[in-house]
Amino acid sequence: MKLGEIASFLKGEIAGPPGGEAVEITGAAGLGDAQEGDITFIASPKYLRDVFSSKASAVIVKDQVSDLKIAQLKVTHPYRAFAELLKLLYVRQHSPSGISSDAFVSGKAQTGDDVSVYPFAYLSDGVRVGNRTVICPNAFLGENTIVGEECVIHSNVTIRENVKIGNRVIIHSGSVIGSDGFGYIFDEGIHNKIPQVGGVIIEDDVEIGSNVSVDRATTGNTIIGKGTKIDNLVQIGHNVKIGRHCVIIAQVGIGGSTEIGDYVTLAGQVGVSDHTTVESGTMVGAQSGIMGQVSKGIYSGSPAFNHREWLKAQVVFAKLPELNKKIRELEEKLKEIERRNPA
Amino acid sequence: MKLGEIASFLKGEIAGPPGGEAVEITGAAGLGDAQEGDITFIASPKYLRDVFSSKASAVIVKDQVSDLKIAQLKVTHPYRAFAELLKLLYVRQHSPSGISSDAFVSGKAQTGDDVSVYPFAYLSDGVRVGNRTVICPNAFLGENTIVGEECVIHSNVTIRENVKIGNRVIIHSGSVIGSDGFGYIFDEGIHNKIPQVGGVIIEDDVEIGSNVSVDRATTGNTIIGKGTKIDNLVQIGHNVKIGRHCVIIAQVGIGGSTEIGDYVTLAGQVGVSDHTTVESGTMVGAQSGIMGQVSKGIYSGSPAFNHREWLKAQVVFAKLPELNKKIRELEEKLKEIERRNPA
Amino acid sequence: MKLGEIASFLKGEIAGPPGGEAVEITGAAGLGDAQEGDITFIASPKYLRDVFSSKASAVIVKDQVSDLKIAQLKVTHPYRAFAELLKLLYVRQHSPSGISSDAFVSGKAQTGDDVSVYPFAYLSDGVRVGNRTVICPNAFLGENTIVGEECVIHSNVTIRENVKIGNRVIIHSGSVIGSDGFGYIFDEGIHNKIPQVGGVIIEDDVEIGSNVSVDRATTGNTIIGKGTKIDNLVQIGHNVKIGRHCVIIAQVGIGGSTEIGDYVTLAGQVGVSDHTTVESGTMVGAQSGIMGQVSKGIYSGSPAFNHREWLKAQVVFAKLPELNKKIRELEEKLKEIERRNPA
Repeated sequence: MKLGEIASFLKGEIAGPPGGEAVEITGAAGLGDAQEGDITFIASPKYLRDVFSSKASAVIVKDQVSDLKIAQLKVTHPYRAFAELLKLLYVRQHSPSGISSDAFVSGKAQTGDDVSVYPFAYLSDGVRVGNRTVICPNAFLGENTIVGEECVIHSNVTIRENVKIGNRVIIHSGSVIGSDGFGYIFDEGIHNKIPQVGGVIIEDDVEIGSNVSVDRATTGNTIIGKGTKIDNLVQIGHNVKIGRHCVIIAQVGIGGSTEIGDYVTLAGQVGVSDHTTVESGTMVGAQSGIMGQVSKGIYSGSPAFNHREWLKAQVVFAKLPELNKKIRELEEKLKEIERRNPA
Repeated sequence: MKLGEIASFLKGEIAGPPGGEAVEITGAAGLGDAQEGDITFIASPKYLRDVFSSKASAVIVKDQVSDLKIAQLKVTHPYRAFAELLKLLYVRQHSPSGISSDAFVSGKAQTGDDVSVYPFAYLSDGVRVGNRTVICPNAFLGENTIVGEECVIHSNVTIRENVKIGNRVIIHSGSVIGSDGFGYIFDEGIHNKIPQVGGVIIEDDVEIGSNVSVDRATTGNTIIGKGTKIDNLVQIGHNVKIGRHCVIIAQVGIGGSTEIGDYVTLAGQVGVSDHTTVESGTMVGAQSGIMGQVSKGIYSGSPAFNHREWLKAQVVFAKLPELNKKIRELEEKLKEIERRNPA
Repeated sequence: MKLGEIASFLKGEIAGPPGGEAVEITGAAGLGDAQEGDITFIASPKYLRDVFSSKASAVIVKDQVSDLKIAQLKVTHPYRAFAELLKLLYVRQHSPSGISSDAFVSGKAQTGDDVSVYPFAYLSDGVRVGNRTVICPNAFLGENTIVGEECVIHSNVTIRENVKIGNRVIIHSGSVIGSDGFGYIFDEGIHNKIPQVGGVIIEDDVEIGSNVSVDRATTGNTIIGKGTKIDNLVQIGHNVKIGRHCVIIAQVGIGGSTEIGDYVTLAGQVGVSDHTTVESGTMVGAQSGIMGQVSKGIYSGSPAFNHREWLKAQVVFAKLPELNKKIRELEEKLKEIERRNPA
């Protein structure tokens, strides 16, 4: 593909050395990985230096870079343009493969048009799978579970009974949706299981990473709101309600009955206690722990408080031995003064 | 079902507006989820306010609530009564489905009466499965592994070779029992694998959440004691011994050869070092880290110490920048005093 | 097997009571698990006391232990000798089982000599599996994925498309290699997915625990270097590059585009931010968090700093309430002195 064609596709403007339109582009790659023939991009001026040493044949930029020997393609939003290009160059349309005779599909399950159900997938009684949805090998769908249209359920995923999944949802391998919530009544020295008879609702455009656990509700539903993105190895307890367009990074754990607003960001390994409420727009730093009623803000620490205050406290924390010494010195000096000036 | 019938079943007493016996109950749900026709419950007075705004048609209570317009059902232990009701209303007895012809069952495996072995389950040589146990689709049982009676092994579970599982054990989807312990000998720049030839013993009435990893022992056995409940995404290292009736919340990690007593509670994301011993009855707060010989107590922090002391230290931690400033002021004032009163 | 034969195999020297050569050894086990007939070992003098109460019939030692009633076998490296013995006594050679007719193997997949492909394994178009490699039940290999020689891919493992795996690699159950990296562009209130079109390269002699997630690169490759060992439930983000012979303990999370050198040790539950670089030989303590450019050293804390300094700061942290009180007393005393000595 010639850079000129890519420029038309991305509605960009070619800059740099003359003849840029004719440069042959054979692939797209990030700055560090790009080889000759590749087009790359810089999302921020801090990568300017690296672009000069890149082996790429062209670079997508926001503003023209002076003195650069390779062709440039100016667009309004380089990273977005690069993502569109990746899709154009690499993402093949999945062609529906129908229902494999090596899959197990209950006679009481319904499947839409142009679905793909691969070998060793298991669709229980009452399952409904929407149009163009892909169910990969070894995936399990429990009784009466509904998966919407254009979803991808990757291999070795388990979706238990009575789960409702919207459209364009992606669930990566190894994830489990609808395992029993962790609920017991302690009585006479024994933890007695509370039946977990609720369900899970996953709204449209949610993406769930690999090896994620989303527990079903005791009663009612565990809910993950439209457009929310969940990274790998995340724990979502029973009856949790997550709003729309949240970003939940890897290894976060969210305790039972917690409610999280819209556009909340939880960084890696964050812990959220059970019965917590988190206001929309809140951001929580990596490895932090939050609980109670969390109003909109940026938080860090375990337990977390205001991120800026936490940063300052952390600076002093590292100096604690020094502070300790200063206090001892102050005490000595005061004693000396008091000795010299008795009351 | 009429509330009168439920009252008989739960051995409770109807209170509230007259005619409560005749109220039609069509479901049971938690306070937040309950709709008209549902019966709900309050486990503690702090939810009293919410019951007044609930849409439920009846509520299970310990003590009668004044001025409440909906029917009340008085019982000694509302939460327990509610759990029994959930079981009555929603939990269908699993009817044994026998051994699917789409499962792989070795000729050298034995299965008890009324088992269910679903399609794409794999039972290796020497496997024994007890009466009424359910092996879900895509589950794997390794050589000579024994699963007791009335167990449920959910879909996509792996139980490796030489694992012994008691009766009434539930293992949720995606969990792995008996993966190799993490043991190497470092020699000449290389980590040489130590064969992990021990097994795993899981005693009666244990429940293991989804995506849990329990490693097999190097020699001997990794042991999980009777009645212990393990949440999702928990790591249990090789040769760990966990006592009876413990509660291990999501994403806890327990290092190799650690021994944990009975009735220990580890909150979410706790880390326990290898070769640690934890006395019975100990409780550890979320995200804390423990190591060494831990005597009975309540702990928090990483590394953890007495929970109350930790709470106090955390309060001061948040004020560290202020403390730092105070110390600087004290130093200034002392200098001034010394200047005015030279020795 | 007689102890004399074991001594020849391990090139060791028998010591202790006379007649040691003739002692019958029926098994090998760790100190705590050893029973009569077993041979055990002590790796360090701190276990000396335990060996006197052990039920073992013989013990592998470095230096002869006085007054011990059981036979001793002196070797240079007891733990290594014990590991070799475990292999000799317990590890059976896996005899190739060929390709099961219950597996799904694409006509466009290639398999080497003496492979084992078990029922319900799925090999996509373009897959290549090397000689003597074992693919366990319910494992999934995506399009054009290459697995080298003498690998073991355990049950319920997912290896997505375009992944390259070297020789003698072990991947434990439930792990997912090549799930999509977590990359979105936020635009007009929506997180737009960035296609993840790169791959994963896993070099020779890597071992990956159970329920591990390794994301594929956006472009280029996520790389795990030769001989690196990864424990259970670890998260490895997209475009991460891990060097050779690293040790990554359970539940570690490594953010996207991070580069880790050789011989790095990350203890349990460590978090590494995205775009971090970690120099070879670095060690990070359990539950710590690192970010930025990390030069060779030993680190602890979240955020982490020098391990020794952190230890000292932690000691003071526990005394913070006391320190706070001291500062208040100093302030009081100073006020009193100033009152008595006005400027």
